[in-house]
Amino acid sequence: MKKIGLIMGSAGDLPVVEGAIGILRDSGAPFEVRVLSAHRTPDELREFASGARENGFGVLIAAAGMAAHLAGAVAAVTTLPVIGIPVKSGPLDGTDALLSTVMMPSGIPVATVTVNGAKNAAILALEILAVSDAGIAAKLGKMREDASRAVLEKDAEIGKLSQK
Amino acid sequence: MKKIGLIMGSAGDLPVVEGAIGILRDSGAPFEVRVLSAHRTPDELREFASGARENGFGVLIAAAGMAAHLAGAVAAVTTLPVIGIPVKSGPLDGTDALLSTVMMPSGIPVATVTVNGAKNAAILALEILAVSDAGIAAKLGKMREDASRAVLEKDAEIGKLSQK
Amino acid sequence: MKKIGLIMGSAGDLPVVEGAIGILRDSGAPFEVRVLSAHRTPDELREFASGARENGFGVLIAAAGMAAHLAGAVAAVTTLPVIGIPVKSGPLDGTDALLSTVMMPSGIPVATVTVNGAKNAAILALEILAVSDAGIAAKLGKMREDASRAVLEKDAEIGKLSQK
Amino acid sequence: MKKIGLIMGSAGDLPVVEGAIGILRDSGAPFEVRVLSAHRTPDELREFASGARENGFGVLIAAAGMAAHLAGAVAAVTTLPVIGIPVKSGPLDGTDALLSTVMMPSGIPVATVTVNGAKNAAILALEILAVSDAGIAAKLGKMREDASRAVLEKDAEIGKLSQK
Amino acid sequence: MKKIGLIMGSAGDLPVVEGAIGILRDSGAPFEVRVLSAHRTPDELREFASGARENGFGVLIAAAGMAAHLAGAVAAVTTLPVIGIPVKSGPLDGTDALLSTVMMPSGIPVATVTVNGAKNAAILALEILAVSDAGIAAKLGKMREDASRAVLEKDAEIGKLSQK
Amino acid sequence: MKKIGLIMGSAGDLPVVEGAIGILRDSGAPFEVRVLSAHRTPDELREFASGARENGFGVLIAAAGMAAHLAGAVAAVTTLPVIGIPVKSGPLDGTDALLSTVMMPSGIPVATVTVNGAKNAAILALEILAVSDAGIAAKLGKMREDASRAVLEKDAEIGKLSQK
Amino acid sequence: MKKIGLIMGSAGDLPVVEGAIGILRDSGAPFEVRVLSAHRTPDELREFASGARENGFGVLIAAAGMAAHLAGAVAAVTTLPVIGIPVKSGPLDGTDALLSTVMMPSGIPVATVTVNGAKNAAILALEILAVSDAGIAAKLGKMREDASRAVLEKDAEIGKLSQK
Amino acid sequence: MKKIGLIMGSAGDLPVVEGAIGILRDSGAPFEVRVLSAHRTPDELREFASGARENGFGVLIAAAGMAAHLAGAVAAVTTLPVIGIPVKSGPLDGTDALLSTVMMPSGIPVATVTVNGAKNAAILALEILAVSDAGIAAKLGKMREDASRAVLEKDAEIGKLSQK
Repeated sequence: MKKIGLIMGSAGDLPVVEGAIGILRDSGAPFEVRVLSAHRTPDELREFASGARENGFGVLIAAAGMAAHLAGAVAAVTTLPVIGIPVKSGPLDGTDALLSTVMMPSGIPVATVTVNGAKNAAILALEILAVSDAGIAAKLGKMREDASRAVLEKDAEIGKLSQK
Repeated sequence: MKKIGLIMGSAGDLPVVEGAIGILRDSGAPFEVRVLSAHRTPDELREFASGARENGFGVLIAAAGMAAHLAGAVAAVTTLPVIGIPVKSGPLDGTDALLSTVMMPSGIPVATVTVNGAKNAAILALEILAVSDAGIAAKLGKMREDASRAVLEKDAEIGKLSQK
Repeated sequence: MKKIGLIMGSAGDLPVVEGAIGILRDSGAPFEVRVLSAHRTPDELREFASGARENGFGVLIAAAGMAAHLAGAVAAVTTLPVIGIPVKSGPLDGTDALLSTVMMPSGIPVATVTVNGAKNAAILALEILAVSDAGIAAKLGKMREDASRAVLEKDAEIGKLSQK
Repeated sequence: MKKIGLIMGSAGDLPVVEGAIGILRDSGAPFEVRVLSAHRTPDELREFASGARENGFGVLIAAAGMAAHLAGAVAAVTTLPVIGIPVKSGPLDGTDALLSTVMMPSGIPVATVTVNGAKNAAILALEILAVSDAGIAAKLGKMREDASRAVLEKDAEIGKLSQK
Repeated sequence: MKKIGLIMGSAGDLPVVEGAIGILRDSGAPFEVRVLSAHRTPDELREFASGARENGFGVLIAAAGMAAHLAGAVAAVTTLPVIGIPVKSGPLDGTDALLSTVMMPSGIPVATVTVNGAKNAAILALEILAVSDAGIAAKLGKMREDASRAVLEKDAEIGKLSQK
Repeated sequence: MKKIGLIMGSAGDLPVVEGAIGILRDSGAPFEVRVLSAHRTPDELREFASGARENGFGVLIAAAGMAAHLAGAVAAVTTLPVIGIPVKSGPLDGTDALLSTVMMPSGIPVATVTVNGAKNAAILALEILAVSDAGIAAKLGKMREDASRAVLEKDAEIGKLSQK
Repeated sequence: MKKIGLIMGSAGDLPVVEGAIGILRDSGAPFEVRVLSAHRTPDELREFASGARENGFGVLIAAAGMAAHLAGAVAAVTTLPVIGIPVKSGPLDGTDALLSTVMMPSGIPVATVTVNGAKNAAILALEILAVSDAGIAAKLGKMREDASRAVLEKDAEIGKLSQK
Repeated sequence: MKKIGLIMGSAGDLPVVEGAIGILRDSGAPFEVRVLSAHRTPDELREFASGARENGFGVLIAAAGMAAHLAGAVAAVTTLPVIGIPVKSGPLDGTDALLSTVMMPSGIPVATVTVNGAKNAAILALEILAVSDAGIAAKLGKMREDASRAVLEKDAEIGKLSQK
């Protein structure tokens, strides 16, 4: 089975990224976690990303804040699908990271998810692998059903606030 | 081979979406183009999106402007990867479409690309299919080389403006 | 008397929505509270909203945050007036919810109120029902007078800070 | 039948407001068009708005740009539902009008629609009157069907761009 | 001597407005503090503002948050100079109040100061009265000198952090 | 009679500033127009602004775009009231000029008007002089009446679009 | 004398960058113009930037739009001063490029200038070289004087619009 | 060796500026810290900045918040390179300071760094001096290696969260 690469630009992003780690761990999919910076360790980042396909990775996730170049730097050296998580950090509110991640030039896409949306990044990675893996697809379907049921349970409970 | 579904929320989005159609046509990948609105044809949209996996689709692309709910409405009824193209239209500058597409709640990701980034959406769709299709992967590698060569040709030409 | 439907996209929106519940409870108008998500329970949401008119509802209120599709998804399947409450939640400041709620395409309006403006949503719902219900209209007039009197009491008190 | 009041803050807003006039004219509903400014004719505005309910109006629409106080000034003196159309005008992009219209304080709601969304304002006004008027409700249902059909016709046409 | 009118839209704005009260009290200028809302007490506001010139006021200050119509509503009924203080309150960050206060239509200016800038509003009011009052002008000159001296004292102290 | 100083940061701002010149010329008030830049001619700007009070000026208007420091630089060296006109110019939309003009630190106010609001700046300057000049106050009252009458004429004309 | 490297991310940025080329050509300083993309030619970019110091460059300028990673990618592999020009391009207004260029993480600065501010980038590059080159410093002083004189000539001309 | 001038607009900016002081102290470079305000002490600021080159300074750093004119006011009177630190302070989020610092008019650049990016300002100042000082260049290279090593140590540690 193809591996998922999960890169954060700074160890300080770990509290956000843990949302993805939890989902991936539960899914049973193999994944590798890395701390690699587009600006502080450009060589190591490049080596990891450019060799990712032949090293068995199927999709890469990159989480970074501020002028978030990480996902773009990864996407520049691989044609694997690259998922970007804009991280809210620093004095602005994550808008900087969102625009730096999503507004990629023509030819080099980054699949950007919600600001701080690490869970969604993990689910999207699984959805990508599930295109050719019915087992993961089934797990994703199960997750959706669980999420739906949780809402309906709350609906039953909070519905008691109604007034006739 | 898995098909790509390409949905626009309004026929008015076609000039933007044509960037994706061109890439997909050149790639030889099978794709289906639809005009379906989350608000004007919710039933038809739902029918198409919820049945997409069993109808042979591997990935769906949704392009919409303003309060762009299209990609999210698609993602709500399938676990296929869904790519969202925020379209610049209406009196604001596409920021409305970007936020409406990317800021999805936990559990339902949309892989958002550049505002008006139809080409990037098509390339991302091909990257997703290429995870399990070496032929598409090779084509993507070729596209990158072409893009790189085009930059270097410009570099040689514009470099003549230098001053010693 | 027509009922008011009050939908929140997540149980986490309850603290905001309680502002509306209080107003509605005081008004004596019948209302039904639901937790239904455009993305996690699209079928149940659709069923509720599309049947609302024939089930005795006169107006629907939908509260959601981030890429807030809830009010739009409701408006897509009913011609009842739909009031949208953009909820401030997640890493951005509610601007995402505001734009996702208000920038609806032509043909499908959402009556959007203040970010987190649950009280205003409830009052607007009552105003809508009051168009053909003089009793509610009178209650609304009374609420305005109370609000006016409260300001004037503060005016008398704080006016003492003046200097001659 | 209750009348709809349609106020613009400046004659320069007429090109935007015409979208609403068209919808209302087609609907057959009685409506009155006024040019009244919150800042240049505050007395006349106040007189019109405060007397609107007893003069047979059921809902008021107010269109204004920039520091758009018009809808709020109307809402301050009536408990009729007030719909605000933020108009894109002046050097900013309509964001000023949107925030000035929608961010009303607690107690005085304005039902805000899309920036420049005059058609949506008219439809919302009809939806409000339709709460107690089955004839208008039927017309609104018909409008939705027409809009849906128009999308599906485009879908059939543009769908020919698909590739097998 | 002409009086300064200091209006806040809600008693909740008092903590911000106190910055102005302090400056005015120290200046010895006569001022009147009012709590009057453009939306909750439009009649009382209008009465106060339209009669201000003949009641001995020389300048009016209006502080309000969110869709801050207060200063504009005052300016609509007087040709006295009106100073607007956008107050940061509610879920957005004061940008709503800033745009609602400053983006006035042609013909009805509001002299807008810093968000939450109550001190600056008070100083500006004094500057306006000082145009024809040398005593106030002298006090303002003294305030500037004090402010300058305070900076230079800090400069001497913090300058010790230098390194040769 | 006190003079009005009207400074633009660049000759390119003249098309905007002409709106102020027209109002001032019609008013008969004496005014002096200057082109002085906070960055390109800081000495001349300082000389003019710091000597303005003793040279017979009663109020200064400063118009500038982008990082609009002009009004602030003027306000730093005089205690005359300083009115700032943020000019829309350059690649952003005037938001840069608005924030650079209005967000002054405590102690040094700038009376900021609408982006590109040169007419409002001129009227505000006249309002300030009118505090102690009944003749100008009368002219301002007349301008308001004219503006009001113009709206009501349009109201009569456009009101014919009403439908019974 | 140290050379200035002037990199644009795309040949489409040349119209903006020409403002810098003109200044540099007039200055007589040696400069090299390159078209190198952080995403399309990451290897060539890296090779150029990482070797720049030993190849005789003293400062590097990088111009790019949208998710503008160019200046950051250069700064990641050299300790030469790197100047970033955010280019306005694509559907947003250059805010994306500004934030992507300026919000660099701690340790890797980019000296960001005005959006589209190519002239300012060139002048800043010359200022940097002038720290140890009195000839360039003199030329910069001369440029300032010329700019100052141009403003004063306009001042004399436009000052004729004054009214006594 | 050339000195670095480090100016803050207010003693309240010291907590931000300390990030720069630390870097400069460690570097051994001579630097002078000043508290000088563009608005409260314009004369002292001008005196310091205009004489900086002849007093042995090689580069100036200016930190200020809100309508941050400090760096621009410095740049107006010297042709030394001027680095601007936009400080997050006041009710907005530092966007005001960023735009006020970076959007300088043509001819007067400010080398703007990250909002609150005092460390980056200090490093940029050292990079500028290092253009003609191999010793500082070597120290900067060492700092980069340390930063890189710190990331790689975290990578080794956090990598243990991977799943096979």
